[in-house]
Amino acid sequence: MNKDLTRADLLVTNTKVYNSYTKAFNERDVYIKDGKFLYIDEKKTGEITTDSIVNGKGRYMIPGLIDIHMHIESSLVTPAAFADYTVSNGLTTIVSEPHEIANVCGVRGIKAMIESGRNAPYDIYYAIPSNVPIMGPEFETAGAEISCEDMLELKDTDGVICLGEVMNYKQIIEKDDTSEVGKFIDIVHSQDPYYIIEGHCPQLKDNELARFLYLGINSDHCDHDLEEIRQRFENGMFVQIQDLMLHQDVIDYIINNNMYEYFSFVTDDTFPDILLHQGHLDNVVRKAIKMGMKPEMAIYSATYTPARRMNLTDRGVIAPGKLADFILIDDPYSLNILETYKKGRKVFDRELYHPKEDNYSLGEDFKDTIMISKPDPELFRVHIPGPDRRIKVRVMQVNRNSNVNLPLFVEMEVKDNLLQWHDSGCLLTVVMERHGRNGHVSYGFCTGDCLKSGAAASSLTHDSHNIIVMGENEEDMLKALETIVESHGGIAAVENGKLTGHMALPVAGLMSEGSVEKAGQDFTLLRQAFEKQGYVHRNSVMNFCLLSLTCVPALKLTDCGYMDTENLKMVPLYEELQ
Amino acid sequence: MNKDLTRADLLVTNTKVYNSYTKAFNERDVYIKDGKFLYIDEKKTGEITTDSIVNGKGRYMIPGLIDIHMHIESSLVTPAAFADYTVSNGLTTIVSEPHEIANVCGVRGIKAMIESGRNAPYDIYYAIPSNVPIMGPEFETAGAEISCEDMLELKDTDGVICLGEVMNYKQIIEKDDTSEVGKFIDIVHSQDPYYIIEGHCPQLKDNELARFLYLGINSDHCDHDLEEIRQRFENGMFVQIQDLMLHQDVIDYIINNNMYEYFSFVTDDTFPDILLHQGHLDNVVRKAIKMGMKPEMAIYSATYTPARRMNLTDRGVIAPGKLADFILIDDPYSLNILETYKKGRKVFDRELYHPKEDNYSLGEDFKDTIMISKPDPELFRVHIPGPDRRIKVRVMQVNRNSNVNLPLFVEMEVKDNLLQWHDSGCLLTVVMERHGRNGHVSYGFCTGDCLKSGAAASSLTHDSHNIIVMGENEEDMLKALETIVESHGGIAAVENGKLTGHMALPVAGLMSEGSVEKAGQDFTLLRQAFEKQGYVHRNSVMNFCLLSLTCVPALKLTDCGYMDTENLKMVPLYEELQ
Repeated sequence: MNKDLTRADLLVTNTKVYNSYTKAFNERDVYIKDGKFLYIDEKKTGEITTDSIVNGKGRYMIPGLIDIHMHIESSLVTPAAFADYTVSNGLTTIVSEPHEIANVCGVRGIKAMIESGRNAPYDIYYAIPSNVPIMGPEFETAGAEISCEDMLELKDTDGVICLGEVMNYKQIIEKDDTSEVGKFIDIVHSQDPYYIIEGHCPQLKDNELARFLYLGINSDHCDHDLEEIRQRFENGMFVQIQDLMLHQDVIDYIINNNMYEYFSFVTDDTFPDILLHQGHLDNVVRKAIKMGMKPEMAIYSATYTPARRMNLTDRGVIAPGKLADFILIDDPYSLNILETYKKGRKVFDRELYHPKEDNYSLGEDFKDTIMISKPDPELFRVHIPGPDRRIKVRVMQVNRNSNVNLPLFVEMEVKDNLLQWHDSGCLLTVVMERHGRNGHVSYGFCTGDCLKSGAAASSLTHDSHNIIVMGENEEDMLKALETIVESHGGIAAVENGKLTGHMALPVAGLMSEGSVEKAGQDFTLLRQAFEKQGYVHRNSVMNFCLLSLTCVPALKLTDCGYMDTENLKMVPLYEELQ
Repeated sequence: MNKDLTRADLLVTNTKVYNSYTKAFNERDVYIKDGKFLYIDEKKTGEITTDSIVNGKGRYMIPGLIDIHMHIESSLVTPAAFADYTVSNGLTTIVSEPHEIANVCGVRGIKAMIESGRNAPYDIYYAIPSNVPIMGPEFETAGAEISCEDMLELKDTDGVICLGEVMNYKQIIEKDDTSEVGKFIDIVHSQDPYYIIEGHCPQLKDNELARFLYLGINSDHCDHDLEEIRQRFENGMFVQIQDLMLHQDVIDYIINNNMYEYFSFVTDDTFPDILLHQGHLDNVVRKAIKMGMKPEMAIYSATYTPARRMNLTDRGVIAPGKLADFILIDDPYSLNILETYKKGRKVFDRELYHPKEDNYSLGEDFKDTIMISKPDPELFRVHIPGPDRRIKVRVMQVNRNSNVNLPLFVEMEVKDNLLQWHDSGCLLTVVMERHGRNGHVSYGFCTGDCLKSGAAASSLTHDSHNIIVMGENEEDMLKALETIVESHGGIAAVENGKLTGHMALPVAGLMSEGSVEKAGQDFTLLRQAFEKQGYVHRNSVMNFCLLSLTCVPALKLTDCGYMDTENLKMVPLYEELQ
């Protein structure tokens, strides 16, 4: 180490510096040396000489933002593209869990993600995908499995710092659990009782919540009501508050009970148009401030507490010896990010910023993942054996306020072994295995706040990422499907035979190869198409992509058919009338 | 793992349980399984069956106490003896730094300490002694050195979790520092930037404090004034509050600025009579409560924050999945400890407790460490070359409120090459190298609040643990010295030719082989003798044992002579009058 501590590399003068311990801003001179804060000088002694000076007058300095629960894939770009853009959001450290690519490409996908982020302008750490696939092969077909052995190998990979969200929360707390992640937790805890394990447990409470915690899975980022939140805090669960959990009663609970130490803000999934037009973790923090949280506390929970949760105790504060990761902002309330510094080096300047034109591909190896034969119109006929009759067909209710799909039954007619669904008020929904494993095709229906006209298709279909097609007519469904197959994956909307929105996702069928700006523009058009065609949801496209997600209640459609995700069993498409 | 989570090993019913997150007591049923808390049941559902039930009615349950900065040797007993007793103080985890034995016996001493604690009723972790000896051989002679390589070896020893207090705080922040600990920190941080490094930096402030922090040394447990404390908190130093730092203004600062997250209570050095009659960490917590800290906050800082500082995130709270380390107390204010449980197993019950009669020796290897020849009366004559004259003799001022010895000069006569000191109001103080390395003998004087009559001697003489003898007459000095040599080490007080107090410390000349009870009784008599002979200090014997401690200001006497510890240089015993 260069121990001449009388010289610094950089001095930021006269800036209002956030102190994480006093939770206050005070005017200070801040010296930086070798990527770390050297001295936060309150007396402005000028004792230290420096090579470079930034005038911080009129600006506020806060630690760089740290997002410890998120999935880069959800922004539909690769890690390098994500990081190149999100320096503008003040991010300086993230922990990403690449379980989307893991479900398609397995360990090689995870490793490609890690490599893609190696030269990023900030630190990208990774969480080990713990449930790939979430359910066993009787429930869904993923492109790959992550075994206990894979997890152990990943654990020792440079940049991997925790086990990502354990999602089989109902299964793992049972005596007869034999899941791979259950095995991994046993092994890892026998080696290291402090290994960080992230959770996912919507609606879990009381004794069941305690069991989940007992296994050492002690964070959660799901949407909750106040009682669920209270139980999590009081039982020592580290709470991760994402955009959709910014309920006023939850924010009030945190404020009134002084729970700032025990939670952090996270983003989980940020679609590219939201990222482009609203922001990232900065946006979540801004919203919390608007809901009444003091900026000094909201900043703490996006910097200090996430760093500590991940044992990244070298950062998240502006103090001597800590990494010089910081942002200059115009005002703590607006949190408008002017400049971002990583290890003392400026990586973003709003006045100088222009989008990079890079191609952010992960390489040709990841562009051939849509393994289905030529789309065939016959695919969209629903064959029902037996005589002509009326049957009770299971339907997923799409609700604009939630990603939970409640089940309902709708009577439909069977004629000539074909289901007559067009006038049922329901949209045909087809899931096709696309990993070249078994060619499964399954059929279901949606109603409610989903599409009303035309069709949509996606190869981004959490978490197994098979292809989902939904539509009110077969022709549009076929065109939507053809579109995404041609683009090596993607999301498409079609109406009256015309493509109304399309986003190519050639990287594993999950991510584009371009910048966040390009992805954001494409996605904006796609969302507009979805909404124009009748989809009503705060995150319509995402909701569509979650219709297969088996860790969310209550009825979901995978390539294996309908799954009752509350009772962990497959259920048939229809029942006979009594 | 036994995953049948419908059965528990132990249930404690109806007890008022401390919640570290809400900082409140609430009546709960607490289930324990396989050494961990399984369920903190607020609804008392009785859903879980159990093998054993404890009625907690009328009692309060708090997490077991965690002391992360302390030296077992200071209690003058070995680790096994210490732990067997201090379960009664509610300790369930400690981090001990064995630099006393390291200064005498080196790495083999540290390893013997670790082994001694292996079967203790609670977890004893160790910090690596970082400054053995504190200063180089030109300043003092220790029995052993701990090199950078030794520290690296110790780092990988089971049970070792951090680097212990870095005490060469003036040296290590300088460009030209070449200390072993400086090398170690460079290496360890290149491998693991999160490795915990504990500090010791009395009086350090401003730019110098920032430099110390910049090196990653980010805790401190020394005595400080309010401004020093404020600077530590605001610069991200983890503050460890020991008994002697319980100043009202410091406690008020913590309360008024809500600094509970950033400090813990510790004990540092607890002499055996204090341990026996007042307690240990429990005593520090009780005192803080008496000074106005709410019990709910004081408990937090003796359980939650110390666990977190040491990354022992598996303990320090009563919550599902955490180690079932807890105490039942009668009342949060009195903190009277009734029962202590470690990993769900009762290790202390006040109603059943009786002292063990064990011999707690570390083995014969550690009983032969007083390597000096037969004490000789000639030793106590101070020879000064040159003609008869008056000279200015350097004297250490002993102050009842501090361990800082300010320097002063006292005129004395030289006659026939012998210093005539008896009527000077100063006591002769002799330090003799006792490790068999060079036979150094050095001379100095004390005045002020030290002994007024008789003599005292000790082989426990921080940190090099040479032998110190102080007296107002040569005969008593000789007898005190003979006494501790015969007992293979110890501390003795003599007056008028009679032994007035004696504690044998045959283990490395630092520790007894008996129980805390025996050590406490012996030490009580010793302290009484010191005080009867005029020593005035809140910790008279300890103050005597610190007269050689080179990391405390301002003038100290080592076997090499007087050291000006503020300017890091040796200074002569006397100066000629001008």
